[in-house]
Amino acid sequence: MTRRDVLPPGIAGHNRTMVTPHYAVMPPEGILESRLPGFEKTKIRFHTSPAMGANFAQALLEIEDGGGTPAPLMDGLEHFFFVVEGEAEIAADGQTRRLDAGGYAYVAAGKSYAVTGAAKIIWVKRPYVAAPGIAPRASFFGHRHDVPKVNKHTRGRNWQALLGEADMAMDMEVNILSFEPGNYFPFVETHIMQHGLYMLEGQGLYLLGREWHECWVGDFIWMGAYVPQQFYATGWGETAYLLYKDVNRDVTF
Amino acid sequence: MTRRDVLPPGIAGHNRTMVTPHYAVMPPEGILESRLPGFEKTKIRFHTSPAMGANFAQALLEIEDGGGTPAPLMDGLEHFFFVVEGEAEIAADGQTRRLDAGGYAYVAAGKSYAVTGAAKIIWVKRPYVAAPGIAPRASFFGHRHDVPKVNKHTRGRNWQALLGEADMAMDMEVNILSFEPGNYFPFVETHIMQHGLYMLEGQGLYLLGREWHECWVGDFIWMGAYVPQQFYATGWGETAYLLYKDVNRDVTF
Amino acid sequence: MTRRDVLPPGIAGHNRTMVTPHYAVMPPEGILESRLPGFEKTKIRFHTSPAMGANFAQALLEIEDGGGTPAPLMDGLEHFFFVVEGEAEIAADGQTRRLDAGGYAYVAAGKSYAVTGAAKIIWVKRPYVAAPGIAPRASFFGHRHDVPKVNKHTRGRNWQALLGEADMAMDMEVNILSFEPGNYFPFVETHIMQHGLYMLEGQGLYLLGREWHECWVGDFIWMGAYVPQQFYATGWGETAYLLYKDVNRDVTF
Amino acid sequence: MTRRDVLPPGIAGHNRTMVTPHYAVMPPEGILESRLPGFEKTKIRFHTSPAMGANFAQALLEIEDGGGTPAPLMDGLEHFFFVVEGEAEIAADGQTRRLDAGGYAYVAAGKSYAVTGAAKIIWVKRPYVAAPGIAPRASFFGHRHDVPKVNKHTRGRNWQALLGEADMAMDMEVNILSFEPGNYFPFVETHIMQHGLYMLEGQGLYLLGREWHECWVGDFIWMGAYVPQQFYATGWGETAYLLYKDVNRDVTF
Amino acid sequence: MTRRDVLPPGIAGHNRTMVTPHYAVMPPEGILESRLPGFEKTKIRFHTSPAMGANFAQALLEIEDGGGTPAPLMDGLEHFFFVVEGEAEIAADGQTRRLDAGGYAYVAAGKSYAVTGAAKIIWVKRPYVAAPGIAPRASFFGHRHDVPKVNKHTRGRNWQALLGEADMAMDMEVNILSFEPGNYFPFVETHIMQHGLYMLEGQGLYLLGREWHECWVGDFIWMGAYVPQQFYATGWGETAYLLYKDVNRDVTF
Amino acid sequence: MTRRDVLPPGIAGHNRTMVTPHYAVMPPEGILESRLPGFEKTKIRFHTSPAMGANFAQALLEIEDGGGTPAPLMDGLEHFFFVVEGEAEIAADGQTRRLDAGGYAYVAAGKSYAVTGAAKIIWVKRPYVAAPGIAPRASFFGHRHDVPKVNKHTRGRNWQALLGEADMAMDMEVNILSFEPGNYFPFVETHIMQHGLYMLEGQGLYLLGREWHECWVGDFIWMGAYVPQQFYATGWGETAYLLYKDVNRDVTF
Amino acid sequence: MTRRDVLPPGIAGHNRTMVTPHYAVMPPEGILESRLPGFEKTKIRFHTSPAMGANFAQALLEIEDGGGTPAPLMDGLEHFFFVVEGEAEIAADGQTRRLDAGGYAYVAAGKSYAVTGAAKIIWVKRPYVAAPGIAPRASFFGHRHDVPKVNKHTRGRNWQALLGEADMAMDMEVNILSFEPGNYFPFVETHIMQHGLYMLEGQGLYLLGREWHECWVGDFIWMGAYVPQQFYATGWGETAYLLYKDVNRDVTF
Amino acid sequence: MTRRDVLPPGIAGHNRTMVTPHYAVMPPEGILESRLPGFEKTKIRFHTSPAMGANFAQALLEIEDGGGTPAPLMDGLEHFFFVVEGEAEIAADGQTRRLDAGGYAYVAAGKSYAVTGAAKIIWVKRPYVAAPGIAPRASFFGHRHDVPKVNKHTRGRNWQALLGEADMAMDMEVNILSFEPGNYFPFVETHIMQHGLYMLEGQGLYLLGREWHECWVGDFIWMGAYVPQQFYATGWGETAYLLYKDVNRDVTF
Repeated sequence: MTRRDVLPPGIAGHNRTMVTPHYAVMPPEGILESRLPGFEKTKIRFHTSPAMGANFAQALLEIEDGGGTPAPLMDGLEHFFFVVEGEAEIAADGQTRRLDAGGYAYVAAGKSYAVTGAAKIIWVKRPYVAAPGIAPRASFFGHRHDVPKVNKHTRGRNWQALLGEADMAMDMEVNILSFEPGNYFPFVETHIMQHGLYMLEGQGLYLLGREWHECWVGDFIWMGAYVPQQFYATGWGETAYLLYKDVNRDVTF
Repeated sequence: MTRRDVLPPGIAGHNRTMVTPHYAVMPPEGILESRLPGFEKTKIRFHTSPAMGANFAQALLEIEDGGGTPAPLMDGLEHFFFVVEGEAEIAADGQTRRLDAGGYAYVAAGKSYAVTGAAKIIWVKRPYVAAPGIAPRASFFGHRHDVPKVNKHTRGRNWQALLGEADMAMDMEVNILSFEPGNYFPFVETHIMQHGLYMLEGQGLYLLGREWHECWVGDFIWMGAYVPQQFYATGWGETAYLLYKDVNRDVTF
Repeated sequence: MTRRDVLPPGIAGHNRTMVTPHYAVMPPEGILESRLPGFEKTKIRFHTSPAMGANFAQALLEIEDGGGTPAPLMDGLEHFFFVVEGEAEIAADGQTRRLDAGGYAYVAAGKSYAVTGAAKIIWVKRPYVAAPGIAPRASFFGHRHDVPKVNKHTRGRNWQALLGEADMAMDMEVNILSFEPGNYFPFVETHIMQHGLYMLEGQGLYLLGREWHECWVGDFIWMGAYVPQQFYATGWGETAYLLYKDVNRDVTF
Repeated sequence: MTRRDVLPPGIAGHNRTMVTPHYAVMPPEGILESRLPGFEKTKIRFHTSPAMGANFAQALLEIEDGGGTPAPLMDGLEHFFFVVEGEAEIAADGQTRRLDAGGYAYVAAGKSYAVTGAAKIIWVKRPYVAAPGIAPRASFFGHRHDVPKVNKHTRGRNWQALLGEADMAMDMEVNILSFEPGNYFPFVETHIMQHGLYMLEGQGLYLLGREWHECWVGDFIWMGAYVPQQFYATGWGETAYLLYKDVNRDVTF
Repeated sequence: MTRRDVLPPGIAGHNRTMVTPHYAVMPPEGILESRLPGFEKTKIRFHTSPAMGANFAQALLEIEDGGGTPAPLMDGLEHFFFVVEGEAEIAADGQTRRLDAGGYAYVAAGKSYAVTGAAKIIWVKRPYVAAPGIAPRASFFGHRHDVPKVNKHTRGRNWQALLGEADMAMDMEVNILSFEPGNYFPFVETHIMQHGLYMLEGQGLYLLGREWHECWVGDFIWMGAYVPQQFYATGWGETAYLLYKDVNRDVTF
Repeated sequence: MTRRDVLPPGIAGHNRTMVTPHYAVMPPEGILESRLPGFEKTKIRFHTSPAMGANFAQALLEIEDGGGTPAPLMDGLEHFFFVVEGEAEIAADGQTRRLDAGGYAYVAAGKSYAVTGAAKIIWVKRPYVAAPGIAPRASFFGHRHDVPKVNKHTRGRNWQALLGEADMAMDMEVNILSFEPGNYFPFVETHIMQHGLYMLEGQGLYLLGREWHECWVGDFIWMGAYVPQQFYATGWGETAYLLYKDVNRDVTF
Repeated sequence: MTRRDVLPPGIAGHNRTMVTPHYAVMPPEGILESRLPGFEKTKIRFHTSPAMGANFAQALLEIEDGGGTPAPLMDGLEHFFFVVEGEAEIAADGQTRRLDAGGYAYVAAGKSYAVTGAAKIIWVKRPYVAAPGIAPRASFFGHRHDVPKVNKHTRGRNWQALLGEADMAMDMEVNILSFEPGNYFPFVETHIMQHGLYMLEGQGLYLLGREWHECWVGDFIWMGAYVPQQFYATGWGETAYLLYKDVNRDVTF
Repeated sequence: MTRRDVLPPGIAGHNRTMVTPHYAVMPPEGILESRLPGFEKTKIRFHTSPAMGANFAQALLEIEDGGGTPAPLMDGLEHFFFVVEGEAEIAADGQTRRLDAGGYAYVAAGKSYAVTGAAKIIWVKRPYVAAPGIAPRASFFGHRHDVPKVNKHTRGRNWQALLGEADMAMDMEVNILSFEPGNYFPFVETHIMQHGLYMLEGQGLYLLGREWHECWVGDFIWMGAYVPQQFYATGWGETAYLLYKDVNRDVTF
């Protein structure tokens, strides 16, 4: 039984959506699917894009068995794929790997990529910004289970650096942050870095701008540059989210 | 007797307009007319355009008898014309057809078009976005009466696909959605696709962002990318609207 | 399976409550029960009272089998009981009647009353205001099925006058209003009469003050004197609500 | 043809109502009628009362031909009647006068009154507050046409003192204020005196608290003690309203 | 030249008024005058009263030469008079004193009082609340110049206790608080005591509830029980205000 | 070092206060002290009272060594004292007990009480409402450590019933509710019972009406009848608050 | 005596400014001056520009005697100058004319311009948008006194077409609209055309988006594309404003 | 002890952040650090950039001992460095200077720059806009102590022109404005010039748009073009801020 089945009639009374010039909160049930050339038997649910004000794009791919990209694609962008559910074969720059939930792939800018299988996959992409004198990183694969959980700043708050931390070759990071119930950040942050946040486990309250938003598994949140933000993890178990962040690059005019 | 005649004095007290960065609600009486080079005896009431944040333009053409475009025009865009009232001769890529209310024409990008007659016509246009390896669709004509009314998802809610459904060659769709009184969408949607909505029959309440807006025949609504949206049809008879949607194309940077 | 079971975690995100000096909207799950002297095995869920600003009190009685009032009570007020679910024995001024869902009883001011059974019952009470030269009405019983459904003002909108219509002896009315989907009132009303509204069937949108509220079965709405109000019935079937109204009496200083 | 006939469907979109703890704006179409003991064939539309926070009551009486009060009434209050439309016989303290539109009657506190005819009548009433050492004023009749229009403070703004000005025996005034188009008060006022305002002719914008309200013929506005207030008359002809004000009495604890 | 003369046209654009259930800000120009029995040639501008929610009344008396109370008055209340401008003869409980600006009088509850002269006077009154076993204080006269300026809590913030400090016989205090520019209170206060504040000199910003209000000479502010409040003195010279506070008494039911 | 010392300058930027007609949030630093007849060397910080809309009064007593009530007091009310810090001698109806932190006393209505020592004490009082046929409860003493912690509804949420649970003789309850981090109530509640809440340990977010409020040790929250309310406990340790609730009595007119 | 002299201290309390993504209201006293290369002894007060969202720029030039542009300038834009006060020599495309208040000049795109004298001048400029097959209009001079006042739509509302009406060669119009007191537009307009409005005489209330703004002589208002707008002229004399409007051109992508 | 140590738990209750399309207020503790290629042992805290809507970028550099730019950088922009704390060696266009707090450097567009030391430095940069016929200014060094404090407009308000005043070669100014407590600007300003403001000493209240913001040492404020703005200095000592302003250039399309 899915959440879709159990919501009472007149569901707009349960509206948790919010889209502003600075941030967006989008529960999963309202993000309708797109179709894209180059994909088959695949629903693409776009989470964000430059049309929202973001400097990256993010989508949830729902690939039916036998669906995905029949042929490799190449669009000049860098890509990050994270398997949320099911199993997928992902090809990056000519190399292919079978990944189950928690597996991920980074496709360097300008390289080919392909995705097939029966899976739900978070897909992040953006134009790569080179740094003078630093060679870009090559494509690679990884798995959430192989990334150490590092305790940061306070008991009960952990980081897993899936992509890009402390690597000046990268212009973006992807991390998994996890929290014991009750944990929170000590400040309302207003940093230049944007975020795409996908709730993997648990629940919490996000302060965005001046308003608190309850969120839980499956929700997507976009945080634009500088938007005030703070978080309290709640509930009875661990809360975790996948977090995109643009890093290591100067401002542009 | 038009609505203009019967509104009581001090009409601003009846203000239903709303224009935000994410959506717009515009009753017909306040959309003043423009004149355009290439048109004669024609009032152009612009509903939306990139100046509003839209990725398309929409207008209501009010052509007096003998008015319209004396000569074919060509501007590189793709066009969609839908006759709301009266009769018009519409030329698309060199072919001409006489259309009464419900008739429509699609003009492929870069082809010539012409419109004459005595009619009210909804006019949608935008730059065509090609898909790699897919040939664009040719210009064509159609009529609302010839398009099957397909029941979708629930009793009392019907779709008529005038243009573009399930056709990856198209970068936009135009549909007529119709509703029995009381019908509604089950979710507050927050999808990437934009909409231009023109009320053809009936009435209802639209949730846009966090506010409900009553609307009825002649109203125009713009919904930007991701704006939260939901609808309840109301009244005693069927409600129907003409709906533009951009589809089938990846995000751009 | 009750609604309580299926609501997702983090339920405050689904908050539909609103309590203002002029009106209140209260979904059933948040109205915690009280216990009262004189009652046994009975949860009393108070909907409204003078503490909210109302000139009457209303509660939902949830009587377990064998519960209710072991002995008749008398408090000087007039009372109205309406059986929503189950079966109850109701005594009014010494007379007892067994009532199933839809049955109701009026207890004249100052007379004794008793309620037993296994049932959910709406209970309205207030101090009776006498009119000079008019004798008060005696206690009586009735049933929703015996009250004619009168079409009023427009197709699809019906009244059932359970108590008090066109009877100057009464200082309150209780009616059931029912609506076909899409139906609505033609004006935003701002009358001196207060309302207690309990949703019996269906769903709709209520405009109260300046805000729209979705409501459905089990909701309670209090409308204070003069509060702006309008309603659209929605959904696929008939919507009906039980409606208290104070009538026929001059203002007091 | 009345305004009721010409309003488009979905009228709540035209909502001009506002009811707050400090003031109220009520267009005529939403003020539903009450029935009162002692009246026949008469709709009583209550404008305000202590239930709104007012220290007086006001209503619009709509008396059908042959309706009104069959017998004189007496309730201890002082009363003011102003004929808006039609003709009425009004009895005050035993004396009867036939009044057409513009005629009015003052009934001293504790005296009997009666109203019959076929007319629309503004009815103001309240408990009289005596002043130590000052005899109350007796009942009397008057007519708008007989009251001098006094220019006050600025060109284009006139007062007609129907009741009570500069008379310390009175605890309330009723005046007609009239304005040429464009005229306004020079300050936002915040005085202790309450107002009941009924628009007789023309239109304008009222600032109440922090919000502007368009108003025109037939509207009622209640202004509580101290509520910030300002007015601009608009339109092409003279604007006039009937204005209740409590005066000449000290505060009470 | 008064401020009234120099304000530009369309003055409502300069609106600084605010009246809420918890507090009020009232610039002088909008506080229209009342007349009261027992006074001659005197404008009474009521600042607050129970009609606003206050547990006291305050007014500005503007007495023309030869005006005031021709005979002593007695109403059971306690009274405080403070001369703001001009000279007045004030009688308290049979004793008379001539007071210039800064002079003040306390009239014990139930004693007679009289005011004459050519002056502007702040007048505070309320029912006296006795304390068990403590004799009420007798009427008395004083002058601002004779009250020591006590520095409190921080450099630049001074108190002058005109009435009632540290005297359990009193149920109210009146103090003059003065501030050097830039000074402020260290906390947002939410105390049970109400305030009536009259700006004597200078200017500042008052936080009331959640909103900042600029204020200057002649403004009146009412602060109800518990209303959040904070103050910054601004400008180039000392800011001072006269401050009513109810003290030393238990809550009542 | 107290919190008062460490707050940065310009403290109003840290404003967490909120006072509305339906609820109040008051951090400790802004609740200024009152003095009361009958008390010595005691600061009384009033949390709530009927002036806020409450049906009870609550205060924090800060008694310096040797302070308190020199003689027993008697005011007809019922009283509840809870020692938060220090040690106190409390006399109830002639019996005296020495209580340290966590100790408490109930004084039946109309009985004498006295408090001395060096302590901080929460003091709740209200007029007792008798129930027909049920004898009032006698005064008594207790201690938090002796009251069982009962797990209710869900893991991590506990109740300690200090006063009145399941006792129809009582018209109020006082409980201590405690929460493991992340815990919350499953619904937004809108019940008739009022609350006075004093934070004893930990921290959390309270939803009141439509706004979230962070709170922590020392905060007071008043919740009026029916006000929408929900709570998330946050932080790294147990959160606990002392909670007043009126119970077991019918509504009154 | 200027308005600057008479404003009371603490002027921010008189704040009438409003700047949003869709419109701006700017009283003259807050528009600080810029200096520009190519100008001498000239204050340039920028009213709007693309930085505000406008498709044109507007400024008030305050030229001291002997100031202005020492040499002709040329920037590819089209320009419109309107003398508000004083006298100026304006050169357009090599021709020079001396203009007093009411005089104006149009400088065709890409032609040189120069301004000298002792005057206040409204300056509008923008990139010219050519129409296919239509020759641009040449530079020219005119005077308000020579332009007929045309009554439009209703008594008391007049148009003077200074520039561009009914001329498809022009991409912008400049008109003077004048109103008798009380006059207004019959609809809330939401058209694609932008406006720059400079108040020449009188006063009024402008509805912009959802808020009313009082305005008077010297105010500037920017109205972006589609922003809801309505106007009431107020006061005792004629109100007039200079109004920029972009016209006659299709939308661009 | 830093402010970070002393803030109480639940810090989001102390939230002073605000980010809108027109302005931003950012306290120091929430501005997380970035790393940039070309810098070592340096935290870059970005205050603003085009991603916020600014036409410049500003950051706070926190350079650990031995950190900074190992080699000179060159990016085509003009740069301004201001040492807030510590000591730094700054190279501009090949010349190096050791600067302590208050020292600053201007690097002309397209010239190389380098920064090393152990210091906190405000860093402003933007593309230089040339003026026709005016040579750009060369790089240079300066110190706050060497810049005269000029009293402007009113007692207690001073300017120090660090960079660019009255120099048409410059497209930006940097000034230090200082205020005695209580001082303020006489108008709400709405000018085209943008600001970056860094609080050096003291505290105050800034009006931005329609909201007042308390600010103190270390805060950053961005003011976009035209945003309404006003300031009151508060506290016991002098308040000073470093202020970027773009000047002397025409608008661009």
